[in-house]
Amino acid sequence: MTLKVALLGCGNVGSQVARILLDEQAELAARIGATLELTGIAVRNVDAPREGDLPRELFTTDAEGLIDGADVVIELMGGLEPAGTLIKRSLNRGASVVTGNKALLAAQLPDLTAAAHTGGAQLLYEAAVAGAIPILRPIRESLAGDHITKVLGIVNGTTNFILDAMDTHGSQFEDVLAEAQRLGYAEADPTADVAGHDAAAKAALLASLAFHTTFDLENVYCEGITEISADDVAAAADAGMVVKLLAIAEKTTDSSGAEGINVRVHPTLLSRQHPLAAVRGAFNAVFVEAENAGELMFYGQGAGGAPTASAVMGDVVSIARDVAAGGGAAKEAQPRPTRALDIAESTTRYSISLEVADQTGVLAEIAGIFSRHGVSIETMRQTVGSEAHDGAARLRIITHAGRESALTATVTEIEQLPVVKTVSSVVRVEGK
Amino acid sequence: MTLKVALLGCGNVGSQVARILLDEQAELAARIGATLELTGIAVRNVDAPREGDLPRELFTTDAEGLIDGADVVIELMGGLEPAGTLIKRSLNRGASVVTGNKALLAAQLPDLTAAAHTGGAQLLYEAAVAGAIPILRPIRESLAGDHITKVLGIVNGTTNFILDAMDTHGSQFEDVLAEAQRLGYAEADPTADVAGHDAAAKAALLASLAFHTTFDLENVYCEGITEISADDVAAAADAGMVVKLLAIAEKTTDSSGAEGINVRVHPTLLSRQHPLAAVRGAFNAVFVEAENAGELMFYGQGAGGAPTASAVMGDVVSIARDVAAGGGAAKEAQPRPTRALDIAESTTRYSISLEVADQTGVLAEIAGIFSRHGVSIETMRQTVGSEAHDGAARLRIITHAGRESALTATVTEIEQLPVVKTVSSVVRVEGK
Repeated sequence: MTLKVALLGCGNVGSQVARILLDEQAELAARIGATLELTGIAVRNVDAPREGDLPRELFTTDAEGLIDGADVVIELMGGLEPAGTLIKRSLNRGASVVTGNKALLAAQLPDLTAAAHTGGAQLLYEAAVAGAIPILRPIRESLAGDHITKVLGIVNGTTNFILDAMDTHGSQFEDVLAEAQRLGYAEADPTADVAGHDAAAKAALLASLAFHTTFDLENVYCEGITEISADDVAAAADAGMVVKLLAIAEKTTDSSGAEGINVRVHPTLLSRQHPLAAVRGAFNAVFVEAENAGELMFYGQGAGGAPTASAVMGDVVSIARDVAAGGGAAKEAQPRPTRALDIAESTTRYSISLEVADQTGVLAEIAGIFSRHGVSIETMRQTVGSEAHDGAARLRIITHAGRESALTATVTEIEQLPVVKTVSSVVRVEGK
Repeated sequence: MTLKVALLGCGNVGSQVARILLDEQAELAARIGATLELTGIAVRNVDAPREGDLPRELFTTDAEGLIDGADVVIELMGGLEPAGTLIKRSLNRGASVVTGNKALLAAQLPDLTAAAHTGGAQLLYEAAVAGAIPILRPIRESLAGDHITKVLGIVNGTTNFILDAMDTHGSQFEDVLAEAQRLGYAEADPTADVAGHDAAAKAALLASLAFHTTFDLENVYCEGITEISADDVAAAADAGMVVKLLAIAEKTTDSSGAEGINVRVHPTLLSRQHPLAAVRGAFNAVFVEAENAGELMFYGQGAGGAPTASAVMGDVVSIARDVAAGGGAAKEAQPRPTRALDIAESTTRYSISLEVADQTGVLAEIAGIFSRHGVSIETMRQTVGSEAHDGAARLRIITHAGRESALTATVTEIEQLPVVKTVSSVVRVEGK
């Protein structure tokens, strides 16, 4: 049995996938029980110089013609169009699709899933979240008989590299970003990474799979790391914690007790004892809490041509085995609707740093505001002297878990107090 | 569509699986696209007292009759027989099987795999290795388009609990073992855990899946933790390292350059920077190195009723989805033969502690022996004084990577030296 494989796009990942399909045909056939034949590679310009020394006759500009004869389509061209149209066309006519296009998936997951159901085809996208780390398949299959309650992910290598360097060397954000750009860990325009947009797209995908739904990217709360200062990182270290940009998806209840899903991306303080705290450099990791399985963590490289190609090929082999075994239809029931909860409804802890007048009665006044909003204080630490400004005391308050709306109302009221000079940072806290 | 599910055994895990199948029938049906009907639970004594308040009419002593009407069989009775015969009977007649019976799998994997192929059925056993951690499916599917080169696993919670407590509190092995027995982390007869036999069975299964073969348990080298002293653990801590019992499966070449697979279980020194070093208490983790994916780690709970039930149910849902989608046949090509390499052919590093006469020329004599065997020394550290015995110096030597046969020959020759009072410990080292 031979399965025809069409490849769309031939950049860094695409050329490595093509190389594997060509060089390892015999090995893959032994693992699958069917031969994978790369029938063509659709590109915009057949004559463009490219890596990998691939046979010229494979290249074509006719993407539609290529996919119409294929059993499996691998989409690695990126961008919303024409990728979205080509994927839907493939799925509708029954060809399964492997893609790593997280922007497209986050924007059109319901449409793409519906097309897969219509065509009786599979849509797999392990490469779209956390690169080489097998995380989507374990969530979709291994934990399919359990109830996931929460997912915490370090899913953006650039921001983890920056925060880790700030933690290790005490540097400022801007200096580390410049170094990351020099080393190739950050783009010339780093906005998608440092503003959290990349992590938000992955958070929407993780939430969709973890909670058997399709979670809309628009409902993901997103806050980047550009406001994190060397002071914040040093203060976290003082408290035995570390700052990480986390993608968080959580099944919870709102203040009326109704169930819903809250998905958010923001800088987060974690205890150094938490398994995610040890994820260094540009590595990624996803921490999953499930009712029966308990705590799980998946760790590895989040980007790069070879790791991403590994994830793509895992999906291709999985589909090919299903087709070879006579199956190949969609494997999951239809996603179910769910209610997205606003960030104001989420339950979290806050770490608040502020400068206050160094006079009696200030602590009582501040503590009174927390109390009136029903927010319980876990620790309050006051430091006077060299690190505080002239005649001021510096306070660091960590709260117990509370409703975000109550926490923000508390901070807003504290900012108005005449004795409060400035609220210098507010960072959410996760973990015990 | 309704799938008949037969459960064999109703201990801690079995009763939780039965509870999930009964209580979550609607939720599981929504996820699968078919209803799972628990048709019966085979036990030795229908009237034995048991947990979970399960309907009495489900219990039967007729295991054969039960499986002959089933689409999916869940084997949680444990032991080699009658479990082995019942599983083969199920597979041969086309019913897929989920089991967590590592002893049976390690002993009979080739027979069981052949029965699955004969019957066109699936045999899944995620629960057999590292409890709730999805590790076998990621290896079998997510990494199916990559080449795994090495697997390092903390796959026995009892020994990790003991070694972690020795590291944290400086206690002796015997004291911690007694505490672990009191807390229920160790059996009254702890041999299977502390001698490494449990880890060896899991190592054989990991090697079989990682290298697309069936690796024979008899070819796993196995050394337990009973010889690890508080001194060894303290010396490791001094050197920035930690002692872990690792299951290691590695694709390598022997001294003639021929390829093979080496599988071994032994106490191992790891740098505290290694992701596995942070795995505390009774937790498990498996570290995988693959050509394209790079380094991956999977972390979670290795045992317990609920975590193990989660792993079992993940396999059940996976099989049920395949059957509901019209597939359900065996998913992998036949395992391929491989060559097992003896421990003597493995390449590793050694940490050697010894007491020598405190006189000139000793270091040169010892270094000369390493050199003659072609073993390169990475660090040699000498301490004289309170911790060494009367008139003796204590040496700690860590080697670069070398062939195990050369390392053992070196140690044997050093032990014969008149100036060497005792070689107090030899522990292998992994990681950079």
